[in-house]
Amino acid sequence: MESIYIVKIGGNIIDDELLLNKFLQKFAEIQAKKILVHGGGKLATRLAEKLGIEQQMVEGRRITDAETLKIVTMVYAGYVNKNIVASLQSLQCNALGISGADGNSILSHKREKVGIDYGFAGDIDRVNTSWFVQLLLNGHTVVVSPITHDGKGQLLNTNADTIAQEIAKSLSSYFDVTLIYSFEKSGVLKDVDNETSVIEKLHLGYYKELKETEKIFAGMIPKLDNAFKAIESGVNKVIIGKGQDLDQLITGNAGTTISHE
Amino acid sequence: MESIYIVKIGGNIIDDELLLNKFLQKFAEIQAKKILVHGGGKLATRLAEKLGIEQQMVEGRRITDAETLKIVTMVYAGYVNKNIVASLQSLQCNALGISGADGNSILSHKREKVGIDYGFAGDIDRVNTSWFVQLLLNGHTVVVSPITHDGKGQLLNTNADTIAQEIAKSLSSYFDVTLIYSFEKSGVLKDVDNETSVIEKLHLGYYKELKETEKIFAGMIPKLDNAFKAIESGVNKVIIGKGQDLDQLITGNAGTTISHE
Repeated sequence: MESIYIVKIGGNIIDDELLLNKFLQKFAEIQAKKILVHGGGKLATRLAEKLGIEQQMVEGRRITDAETLKIVTMVYAGYVNKNIVASLQSLQCNALGISGADGNSILSHKREKVGIDYGFAGDIDRVNTSWFVQLLLNGHTVVVSPITHDGKGQLLNTNADTIAQEIAKSLSSYFDVTLIYSFEKSGVLKDVDNETSVIEKLHLGYYKELKETEKIFAGMIPKLDNAFKAIESGVNKVIIGKGQDLDQLITGNAGTTISHE
Repeated sequence: MESIYIVKIGGNIIDDELLLNKFLQKFAEIQAKKILVHGGGKLATRLAEKLGIEQQMVEGRRITDAETLKIVTMVYAGYVNKNIVASLQSLQCNALGISGADGNSILSHKREKVGIDYGFAGDIDRVNTSWFVQLLLNGHTVVVSPITHDGKGQLLNTNADTIAQEIAKSLSSYFDVTLIYSFEKSGVLKDVDNETSVIEKLHLGYYKELKETEKIFAGMIPKLDNAFKAIESGVNKVIIGKGQDLDQLITGNAGTTISHE
């Protein structure tokens, strides 16, 4: 099967113009089909502050009231998405920026949890796989902002990690999928305070062992559990590391590569 | 040739949720290929005011400094575009929202005019016709926000009327194009103060006669000159009227229809 790289970048890259430009250059150089999923970084928080809209967080998730939804739609699907697309176009990468409403590409529902009102936060129901395949076969690099919709006219703020994972899973019947999570560390670390202690390869047996002996940073466990779920669902590899090392993440010379064996 | 309707809506519809919803319902019901081009309305101005960014206008055009470009990118390509797309999706219309950077669809250059610095305002160089044709043939209704790019990574604020016209002209070799300009009046009026004085049909001979006898409102002349240019470039019809009358504009029961004869 043909290869595809699905790369998720977060705030640490989006908030730093120099890092972002370096990353986009490396991303544009990938000679294979590719999708970029981005979060929003601190821009949304800063704009909310300037407008005097108070931001509430519960369990690390932003509570998306109507005003905050406006802001994240403007910042993520507008400012961040279109600037990334324009940069990629200048690098001869034929980018197309979308939200999950475009082409009905990502359908979600408003999160319901007893006791907590997350507001306009979306949990994904369905990725429109054939739509992504069509765009990719037509030569597009799809740039996905973390805004989805419920099919009834409502936009919903949606976790970018989850979007990347769901797209990766949905495309795994069509492509040999590598899912890359860019974050602020060099990879999964044996010692959280030592950037040189990157675990190069991680498979399920070794991961269980590390978990049992409590040799893995607790904060990484949800990310890694999700990575193994993606692998179980047909994704070929998950790579975790710094976005600015993208070329080396792909060749296995940086970051942590998670796979079946 | 197959028909296509290219409809431009402006601030008077975008700023009024009820009008916008009524318009989108009628737009979604058009049983033919279609493209929607939207402006931004007062939302951008209001956001700029809230953020304390002073807006300068020269000859009716907004001066787009760096901060204003951020705002129009957020509001037009983000908030307005994605909300229209989500609404159309809820009406079973497979909308895809874009800026001119997406798919390298509309290439422009920074406007240069001796003595006036318009800032990041773009004048269109080229519409990527084959890209629009491909998306339309794949069943998409394209929703275009008035942000284009220069191919070198710079987004540019661009007049929505001109975008609609350039797309209409570029598609006229592939489709039988009807270009519809929605504005606040019922059509081209013989008497600017009388909404019932709509000129139903306008062709070049009659237009010249009206201009010579000064029987046409001066403010309409640039719009009409552009409409006739579009007709000369292969567009089949230009219709001018109220967006909320869209169904009747199409059947010729409302608005002014401009054509060869």
